Formats: sequence, structure tokens, C-alpha cells
Amino acid sequence: MIFQNENSFEVKEKIEKSQIVILPIGAVEAHGPHLPLGTDNFLAERLSERVAKKTGAFVLPTLPYGQVWSLKNFPGSINISNESLINFLFDIGTSLYEQGFKLFVMINGHLGNAVAMKEAARKLYSEYPDLRVLYLFYPGVKQITEEVRDGKSAHSTYFHACEIETSYMLYLAPEYVDMSRAITDIPTIPPSADITPTPWEEFTKTAVLGDAKAATAEKGEKIIEVAIENMIKLIEGAKNGLK
Amino acid sequence: MIFQNENSFEVKEKIEKSQIVILPIGAVEAHGPHLPLGTDNFLAERLSERVAKKTGAFVLPTLPYGQVWSLKNFPGSINISNESLINFLFDIGTSLYEQGFKLFVMINGHLGNAVAMKEAARKLYSEYPDLRVLYLFYPGVKQITEEVRDGKSAHSTYFHACEIETSYMLYLAPEYVDMSRAITDIPTIPPSADITPTPWEEFTKTAVLGDAKAATAEKGEKIIEVAIENMIKLIEGAKNGLK
Amino acid sequence: MIFQNENSFEVKEKIEKSQIVILPIGAVEAHGPHLPLGTDNFLAERLSERVAKKTGAFVLPTLPYGQVWSLKNFPGSINISNESLINFLFDIGTSLYEQGFKLFVMINGHLGNAVAMKEAARKLYSEYPDLRVLYLFYPGVKQITEEVRDGKSAHSTYFHACEIETSYMLYLAPEYVDMSRAITDIPTIPPSADITPTPWEEFTKTAVLGDAKAATAEKGEKIIEVAIENMIKLIEGAKNGLK
Amino acid sequence: MIFQNENSFEVKEKIEKSQIVILPIGAVEAHGPHLPLGTDNFLAERLSERVAKKTGAFVLPTLPYGQVWSLKNFPGSINISNESLINFLFDIGTSLYEQGFKLFVMINGHLGNAVAMKEAARKLYSEYPDLRVLYLFYPGVKQITEEVRDGKSAHSTYFHACEIETSYMLYLAPEYVDMSRAITDIPTIPPSADITPTPWEEFTKTAVLGDAKAATAEKGEKIIEVAIENMIKLIEGAKNGLK
Amino acid sequence: MIFQNENSFEVKEKIEKSQIVILPIGAVEAHGPHLPLGTDNFLAERLSERVAKKTGAFVLPTLPYGQVWSLKNFPGSINISNESLINFLFDIGTSLYEQGFKLFVMINGHLGNAVAMKEAARKLYSEYPDLRVLYLFYPGVKQITEEVRDGKSAHSTYFHACEIETSYMLYLAPEYVDMSRAITDIPTIPPSADITPTPWEEFTKTAVLGDAKAATAEKGEKIIEVAIENMIKLIEGAKNGLK
Amino acid sequence: MIFQNENSFEVKEKIEKSQIVILPIGAVEAHGPHLPLGTDNFLAERLSERVAKKTGAFVLPTLPYGQVWSLKNFPGSINISNESLINFLFDIGTSLYEQGFKLFVMINGHLGNAVAMKEAARKLYSEYPDLRVLYLFYPGVKQITEEVRDGKSAHSTYFHACEIETSYMLYLAPEYVDMSRAITDIPTIPPSADITPTPWEEFTKTAVLGDAKAATAEKGEKIIEVAIENMIKLIEGAKNGLK
Repeated sequence: MIFQNENSFEVKEKIEKSQIVILPIGAVEAHGPHLPLGTDNFLAERLSERVAKKTGAFVLPTLPYGQVWSLKNFPGSINISNESLINFLFDIGTSLYEQGFKLFVMINGHLGNAVAMKEAARKLYSEYPDLRVLYLFYPGVKQITEEVRDGKSAHSTYFHACEIETSYMLYLAPEYVDMSRAITDIPTIPPSADITPTPWEEFTKTAVLGDAKAATAEKGEKIIEVAIENMIKLIEGAKNGLK
Repeated sequence: MIFQNENSFEVKEKIEKSQIVILPIGAVEAHGPHLPLGTDNFLAERLSERVAKKTGAFVLPTLPYGQVWSLKNFPGSINISNESLINFLFDIGTSLYEQGFKLFVMINGHLGNAVAMKEAARKLYSEYPDLRVLYLFYPGVKQITEEVRDGKSAHSTYFHACEIETSYMLYLAPEYVDMSRAITDIPTIPPSADITPTPWEEFTKTAVLGDAKAATAEKGEKIIEVAIENMIKLIEGAKNGLK
Repeated sequence: MIFQNENSFEVKEKIEKSQIVILPIGAVEAHGPHLPLGTDNFLAERLSERVAKKTGAFVLPTLPYGQVWSLKNFPGSINISNESLINFLFDIGTSLYEQGFKLFVMINGHLGNAVAMKEAARKLYSEYPDLRVLYLFYPGVKQITEEVRDGKSAHSTYFHACEIETSYMLYLAPEYVDMSRAITDIPTIPPSADITPTPWEEFTKTAVLGDAKAATAEKGEKIIEVAIENMIKLIEGAKNGLK
Repeated sequence: MIFQNENSFEVKEKIEKSQIVILPIGAVEAHGPHLPLGTDNFLAERLSERVAKKTGAFVLPTLPYGQVWSLKNFPGSINISNESLINFLFDIGTSLYEQGFKLFVMINGHLGNAVAMKEAARKLYSEYPDLRVLYLFYPGVKQITEEVRDGKSAHSTYFHACEIETSYMLYLAPEYVDMSRAITDIPTIPPSADITPTPWEEFTKTAVLGDAKAATAEKGEKIIEVAIENMIKLIEGAKNGLK
Repeated sequence: MIFQNENSFEVKEKIEKSQIVILPIGAVEAHGPHLPLGTDNFLAERLSERVAKKTGAFVLPTLPYGQVWSLKNFPGSINISNESLINFLFDIGTSLYEQGFKLFVMINGHLGNAVAMKEAARKLYSEYPDLRVLYLFYPGVKQITEEVRDGKSAHSTYFHACEIETSYMLYLAPEYVDMSRAITDIPTIPPSADITPTPWEEFTKTAVLGDAKAATAEKGEKIIEVAIENMIKLIEGAKNGLK
Repeated sequence: MIFQNENSFEVKEKIEKSQIVILPIGAVEAHGPHLPLGTDNFLAERLSERVAKKTGAFVLPTLPYGQVWSLKNFPGSINISNESLINFLFDIGTSLYEQGFKLFVMINGHLGNAVAMKEAARKLYSEYPDLRVLYLFYPGVKQITEEVRDGKSAHSTYFHACEIETSYMLYLAPEYVDMSRAITDIPTIPPSADITPTPWEEFTKTAVLGDAKAATAEKGEKIIEVAIENMIKLIEGAKNGLK
């Protein structure tokens, strides 16, 4: 169900049957010495494929560029402004609607995209009320994450290149992880980071927010499987709600 | 030299050394019964990898969505407006410049992107005069194409899902081609298509503009190798011109 | 220190001395039968005055319109788009910077403004690196809120016209509250509300998300005093960090 | 009839009954030594309340920021661009229309807002033809002003912090006026000020354009009562014209 | 001194010598039965040529499209939005500045352009402080117009296709006037036209606001010569003020 | 059939009868020592008049400013951005549609306008599907040009101030040509000019791309007559296709 592998003679009928399309969206962003710049892309893509299989959805090609304001001054990061990203996602959604999809699911691997995805979804909602748009970022994993985590967390909301995200990668895309280079770096994030523009170079040199050494594929599996299960439920719920 | 496989600890030095970065850009677009929707993405990506190897450039993740106005009403097409695409490319270019690249090469697999790429390049030129930006779409293949072509061409400028583009795919990405379904369809494109907005459904039902059956990997090789050679020359030329 | 009560002959010197300016920002929005449409304006304004006294800051006139997407279909709500709000806040910040302020503090009474405030702050940060911009929404009250709360909460993040917000009003602006009309309404917010555009009329008829009857001025005092204390700390911290 | 004091349970019915809503709009702007920065806000607000009482209209919270290009370099001024102001007013008008109002009256205290208000009104007219939008700035007071004025006028169109505006304040908001500091300053405004961008610092140091000492509450009363009467007539006229 | 008749080998030196450039700007707009749609273009152009001769300025090709909101529903009118017009004028001004001009004079034949011209001038002033920009619309003719006028005026500010404007044409461009078809039509413009969007079809069927029959070349001459004299003074004044 | 010479009492009926309107669009741009800056305006205008006579179309006033990126640093050039030009053309098209025209033909004298014209046409097509928009730039003259040309051509697509364009002028607007100053300048345009932003000062000092001395009115006539014939055919074809 890889959308871009389909041909135009048969895809229309398949769209009508499936109704659901998933857009993986990630970023190119610094992730420390042991994870690649494309970490969020690999995660979004692998998650999307897994979810697609279970829901009969199509998977679009990954949008591999996202809003990377906080880490944009780190080596390798590429930053798209919220405004550009919103418009780009809106255009994709418009075409998907015109192609006949009823349910447009964005599966996100990068927290920085959240604002643009929500805003694009609202604009699509306003323009095409009968297109349902979902924006998903590891939904419902708070509890399992707390259970799984051994190391300390640098922040209550952010996780980045740490025990958690590295575990995701060890489970979903281990071929891109070099655990021999994993580090433990638990920076003190100043409270002001939540209330004033704070590029991350102000508190970390590594872009790692935690104990990457504590990561394991098993930990990743536990959280990711919950996330996938929740995504499936949310998609099925939305599908049932379609008119 | 896959950029997103790099890590943030080492990439800075490598950027300084390489100076060159390639963005493959394609589209999701109807390409008839024998070619996939992602044809332009596969071509842009494979070309970019080939060119990167010869020039020591980095290859960015493919931007897999483009301007698909003419075919947007065909099954499977996804259309980004010129305006959205220009802004997105400008943001990417800005980050690449800030990351230290000196030469930003867009390798295009889809003619419809040409206007946005050129406009983005001009905006980048105006904003960052010491960043060199190239936009490449099979440069310098006119003569070899005419030599290679057996079938008739539907249009002097466009080629689409035809003998030529199918040959490209047979050479660069044969696993996505189903020659058993290739067709010959040489529509009469009305002269007015060049001077008034003309969605392609007005003159073709298949989105194939020529004799796809006449495609061979050998033909593809002949043209593509010329294109690659020219791209390398243009990149080397631009590199030599860097201050 | 009410800014608009100052005159232009003396204000310049006072700005140089104070360096800090607070913009209260709220919204006109449905808040059930017992709270006025201007609830978020009254809260932002009273909070700002309190904080200003302790920090020597100026208080600007309240910006009484905000982003009210979720409740915009409820009687009395007025909605400003994120885009318009960002530009408006950016213009205010530009003038404040040109007037000589070093620290621009937005004190927010309405969660819906958070995205626009953060985006405006980032744009100002990029344009005027030596202007410090803070966006504050009851910072650091999570723990005290959980301690104080008697009733059930409808959502882990949102609070609206409920035990908590009504308590704020009873403490800060009791003359606008009609407790005789307070209601208990704890709607079931569907999990999908976090992942798809969900106007609140889909799950509540009253716009009250909790037990407004349980509100008291004492509860409000406990939380608000913590919020004020935290705001002062954050402002003092930022002031000390000024170059 | 203070809109933000209403609650969402009753306001809908009241909107249907009243049909009319007034937005006071002013500015934060230098007004010399005897008048506060918020002069235009106080005037717009007091006028609006008076007009509302006579017409059964709702009064919205004052929009206290306006286009202050000419005086933006004076201490205390805050300037919103025409573009930002137009969009903000358009959003407010859209919500008012969706809320059921038929007649949206902007009562302006600051000449600099005139262009944005008119443009916003035209955009609303084009988008919502059955919403009537009025923009009022002391309508029909030319003759009475000439009768009342004792001092010299610096300009045929502008009046600012002078005999006239100070008289307005003495009548409508005397608690903000410090007549002991009123000055007489009748600058020579160069004719070129009407035909080329001319920030006011080019011809005045005080921002006072006339003889503020000549101001009296009685003068203010005479003009303001004519303005109010005319506003009421215009509103009643527009109300009668509603479909 | 017709700019577009110059060649690029000599124009640079001439620009340095002249320093002044005039842009005539008009509109295509209904002007009744006796005047052509291009009336405002002919007037702006002829005025510009006259002024250029006296000031040694270059005259640019006329921009023959303007903001025609009020009459846009009349046969033959073409309307450019303020936003488009501002951007277009800003681009022209930018090029003129880069070409070396010091004084950019817009001579306007159509009142509806006034807002866009002023806004464009302010944007240019902000971006290129050493470019002086003038926007001229029959400056200083109020008194002479009142002396000359025999017929009644429909409005204190507007004049359109009436005794005055027809006299202008009889003096400056008589070959376009058909006095045998001139009419007298003095509509009652409702006072509300000044305070609410009012397309002119609400009060006139002819687009003539006065007694066109009373027009004479002599009347036109008297007013136009005053306007020209004033324009020359303003331009000379601005030229003397150049750094 | 000069549109701006018409009056508003009769033009409506004439529009209904003609249905077709032509907008000449050119540029102010360096054209060497022998051709004026307004060359593209003169050509567009004369062509339009000729075509109008044969098709019964109206001719609008020439839009004399265009996109002149490549030559904007040459003396005398005035550059409008693509964005501004698109919006301006869109506004004109909107009015023409509202005025009752069915066929809007842009006759272009300047290659640089091509992108904006096509984009504006597509936007108009999308907004007003029953308005037909044509953008014409010497259609179908490739073969005759090759036959006529004696001198060498500097580029396969561009022609500028050379044998060809000078011949156009000698045929259509000889009074603006000074052949005594014509030069031969065949610059080597680097291949990179097609794939990277390349202002023309990088390869020419004269802005002449060929042998202007070889120009004759006869050559111009041969090509121009073919162009006119083709334009008429395309317009007639489009007219027949109107619903």
C-alpha cells in the first residue's frame, strides 16, 4: 500500500476502497553522535508502514523536512518555517481530498511539526468539512513511557535523542543506530525555556536530552506497540465516524 | 554521502569539506499504467545519487511533492502550488546556507517544478549572494534524445510516461516498471495548450504522451549518461567559480 | 505604571528606568452562565497589574481579542486567526523595542493564544535579538492546582469556566462572577479531540469543563499567588540576563 | 450593554434583539505633556458608551492599538501596520457576523486608523454583503468646530492634542487631563507633509498641534454632542436600511 | 524626457543629471457619456508632461490601472486592489531607487489611488530613506476651484466627470471629449457614503457627479495651471531638500 | 476599438458583442544603444492593435512594466516581481470577467513576463472557469525566424535587441529605432545561465544579444506577419470554443 508505487489506472478504485491515507512527516535534525540526522524521518516512515498494514491505509512518501527552530543552529539541521509548512501540508490535503480520500492521517516523528500540523488540519477542516484530518505523535504513551524509563528525563514534554527516542530507533530502525557512540547527557533545561525563545544551544552541546546508553530495543518495542495500537484505534474511530 | 544518515557530531566538518549538497525533487503524479505515481521521485533520487558519487556532494532526502497543475485531476496526482513550493525550497536553501554549504543543487525529475525552482533560486541569490544555486532537469540531452528516439513525440518540450521517460526508468529504476502494461498513446496536443491553461485531461485519458512500448534500458542509458555527465560538468564548473 | 496614563514628555525616561513592559492578552469567549465573555481579559489584566507592581514594569492596555477557534461557534465568542494575531503582536513588539524596552512580557489569560504568542516571540527574537520576550500562562501551577482541586477535571491540559478558572475569577475579579448560576458540567471529551480539529460544541453545550460550583476565592488565591510568584521569578530572571 | 460582561447563555438572544455592535478603536500615542498616551482610547470608549446607550447597541472591548505612523518615533507611541490592523478588524467583523450581528460600527478616536478601517469595511462588505459596517470619526463636526475654536489651527484636517482634542478630553475624560501642563504650540506644518511621507518630528517636538490651553469642557461638549447626535443618526439610518 | 524613449547607453548619465522621475498614474473607469474610460490616464499623462518640462524630470510610461472600488460595477471600469497596487508601486520605486533617481514623483489622475500611493510611499520611505517620494493629486486647487465653479457640486471632496473634471479634459485633452453628450446630473450622495462602503450605483446611474455641461477649457486652464504651478513648487522644494 | 477611448454609456453593449479583450504587456528595459527602453511596450502595443483589428477585439491600455530580473541592473530597467505582476494581472482579469468579457488575451512583448502571465492565467482559470485566458508571445515563429535570420544567434531561446527584435521594431515602430547606432555583439552566454541565476551583466555589457546591424524591416515583416496570423488563429480558435 505504498502510494507512490501505485499506477494511475488502478489507484482511483483503490482509493475509494481504502479511504485512508497516511503522510509520514519527520525532519532533518541533529540527534547526537549515535543517531542519524534523519531519525525522525525513519521513525515516522516505519510507524506509518506498520499502521497502514493494520488499517488498510495508503502510505504517502515521507515529507522529510519539518519545523526545526530549536535545533536549527546545530550541525545538519534543516528548518522549514511554520508558515511554509502549513501551506505545504494544506496543499497536500487539498489534493488528497480531491483524489477522493476521506481520512488524511499525518504521522509525525518530530515534535516541532505539531503546531503546523494542527493549523493545517484546522484550515483543511474549515475548507473541506467532509475530509477528516488526524495529526498523530506517539499518542497515549505517557504512562508506558514512565514505566519503561530507567534513566532521568531532562524535560517533562520533550524527549530527544535520549533513552526513549533511541529505544524507538533500536526497535524500528536499528540499522541506523550506533550504540557504541551513545552518550549520557542530561542537561539542565532552564525553566525559562518554556516561556521565552530558547535555542537549544543555550543548554546543550550534544542535542541529547537524557541517557541514550540506557536505550534498548525492548523498551522501544513496549512504547511503540502502545503508540501503534492507539493510532489504529484513533484511525478506526475516525473511520467509523465518517459520513 | 546520504545526508540524513550522517550524525550531528561529524557532519559539520564534512560539510566544510564537500561544500556541495543535492536536493532531489520529484512529484507524485499519474504516469499511465506501466509506471508508478512516484516515477519522478525515483528518477530524481537515482540521478542524484549517481551525480553525488562523482562530485563528492551530499544527497538530501528527496522532496517527493511538486507542482502538478497539468495532471492534478488524474488519479493519484498530488499538487503543490508554486507559491508553497517556492517558500519551502527557499527555507531549505536558507538552512543549507546557514549550515555552511556553498553550492545547492536541485536535481529535478518533474518539469512542473521548473518555475518554482528557478524562482526560489533567484530569491536565494538575492538574499545570500555567496550561495550558488543550481536547478537541473536533464540538461543538454536534446540532441541525444532525438538520436535515440524511435517513436513519435507528442510535444516538442514535454515528455511524459513515454518512450523517453519509460526508458529512463528502465535504466535507473527498472523494478518499478511493468513493461507488460506499457501502451502507445500519441495524443494530439492542441496548439492552444501552449497559450492557455489546459489541464491534460482535455487531450489524453492515459497521461502517456508517446510510445511507451518503444522504451528500453539502453535508450535510457544513452540519454541519462549524457545528462549525468552534463550535470557533473555544470556542478564542477560552479564549484570552480565559488569564491 | 499604567502605560497609557503616562504622557509623552516623561515616559521616555521612565522606560529607560523600568525596561520592562507587560501586555495583558485575553479573549472574548463563551464561559458559561456564571462567568462573563471577557473572563480571560479580566484575569490577564488583574494578573498583569499585580505582577507589574512587584517588578516595576509598565502595563499596556489589554489586547482583548484572541484566537478562539475551539469555541468560536458559541454565543459571544470572537475569533482572531493565528496569522492576524501573530502579525499584530509582532508589530506591538517592534514598537516596544523601538521605544527602548528591553523585556516584553505577554501575560496571557487564554490558552488559545499560546501558539500565536510563541510564534510572535520567535519572530521578534529573530528580528531584534536584544529584545527579550516572555509569554506567560499561569506558569508552574500544575502541582498546586492538583492539590487545590476538589472536583473532577474534564481534561488534563484544558481548564475552562470550571472549578479552577472560576476560582481565579472569584479571587481576582469577583464582581464579574455570578456563583448563583454556576453549574457542574463534566463532559466526556473524546480522545480524538487531541488529534483532530474538534470544535467544542461536539462535546459540550455549556462551555463549562468541570464543577464550577466547587470554586472558591481561597482556591483561586492559592493557585494565583503561586502563578504570580513564578511570573515574578521568571521576569526577574530574564531581567538579570539582559545584556 | 458592555459586551464582555455578558454571559454566553443569554447573549445570543440579546444579539438578535440589539443587532448593533460598536467597536471602540483608538491608539497608544504621544499627546504632549497634558494628555495621556491613551487619549484616543479613552475618547473612543467614552463616545461608544454614550452612543450605545442611545442606540441599544453592544459595546465591545476597546481595541487599544492603532496605526501610528506619523508619531511612531515619539516617546510612548505604539504602531500597528495598516496590513495587520486590516486583518485584525476583518477577523473581528467575521466573528460578529457569524454571531448574528447585522450592524458593525467602529467608533474611532484616532485619525491614523481611518485607512485600515475603511479597507476592512470594504473587505467585509465584499465577503458578507448582508453585514453593514460603519466607520465613524467625529462625523459632521466641521462647522461646529470652526464656531467653537478660539485658537489657531495648525492644519485643516489634522487636530492633535490641541484646543479641540483637549476639549474633548475635558468633557469626556477629564480625570486624565492635566491642564496645568497644557501648552500652546502651533507648529508650521510644511505643505509637503500632505504629499510626501513626513514623520511629525520634522515639524513638532511636542506632538501638540495648537493651543491646548484654550481647551474647555464646554467647547468639548458642544462638538462632542454634535458628533454623538450625528453618529446616532447614521446608526439609526443604517439600521432602518437593514434587510 | 520621455523615459521609455531613452536608450540604455545614455540614460544613466541623464538620470544622474535629472534626479527626478514622474510616474503618471490613472485608471480605466466609467466617466459618463461624454468622457472616455481613460480620462484619468489622459489627465495624469498630460499633467506629467507639462510638469516634467518645467522641472527637467523624466516621465515614465503611465500606469493606466488603478483602484476603482467605488465605480467597479459600472460598465468599463477595471479595478486593482489596494494591496496589488501598493506592491506594484513599491517595486517600481525600488527599481527607480536602484537606477539612481533621488526623487520619485507620482502624479495621480484618480482619487481612488490615493491610499495605495501614500502607503507605497511610506514603505519606500522606510526601506530607502534617501529616496524622496511625492504623491500629487491636483495640489492646492481648492480655492481656485471654488472660484471657477458655476454649477453645484455633488460632494465636498469627490469630483467626477463633472464641471471640474470635464473642464480639465477640455483644457488638457479636448480631443477625447464629446461635449454634445455632456449631461447635468447632480445626484444626492447620502451622508452615509462617507462612513460605510457605498458603491456609487447606489446613488448615480451616470457616474457624473455634477454639471458637465458647464465645463469649459478656460475653467480647466485656471485650475490646472494652479495645480501645475503647485506641483512644480513642491517638486522644487523637495529637490532642494535632497541630501 | 481602443478600450479607454470608449465611454461607459455604450461600452457594455460593445463588450457583449465583441467578447474579446487584449492586454498589451511589455516592460521598461535596456535594449542597447539603438532601441529605446520601451521597445517591448511599443511592440506589444502595435501587435495588439493589429490583432485587434482582425479579431474585433478591444485593446486595453498597455501595461508598461514587467518582470525584468535578468537585466534589472542595466541602466533604465524597471523590474516588477513575479508576485506583484501575477496579482496585478489577476485583478485586471477579474474586472474583465465581471465586465462581461469571455476571452482575455495577453499579448506580450517581453519574455520575462511569461511566468507571471501563465500563473495569472491559471489562477483566473481556477477562479472563473468560464473566462478563457490566452498568453501570447510571438507564437509559432520558430521556423520563419530561422529562415529569416542572417546573423548568428546568441541563445536558442532568448532574443534581445538583436537582428530579430530590431527587425520587429523596424517593421512595427521604426520611428523609435536609430540604426546608425546599431551594433553587433554576440556574447558567449555560458551554459550555466540556463541552470543558475545569472544576471546578464555577467556576459554582456550592451544588452544586445546578436547582430542588430543585420536587422531590416523586411525581416521583421516576415516574422511578425506569421506571428499575427498565428495569434489570430489562436484567438479565433478560442472564441469558437467558448460556451
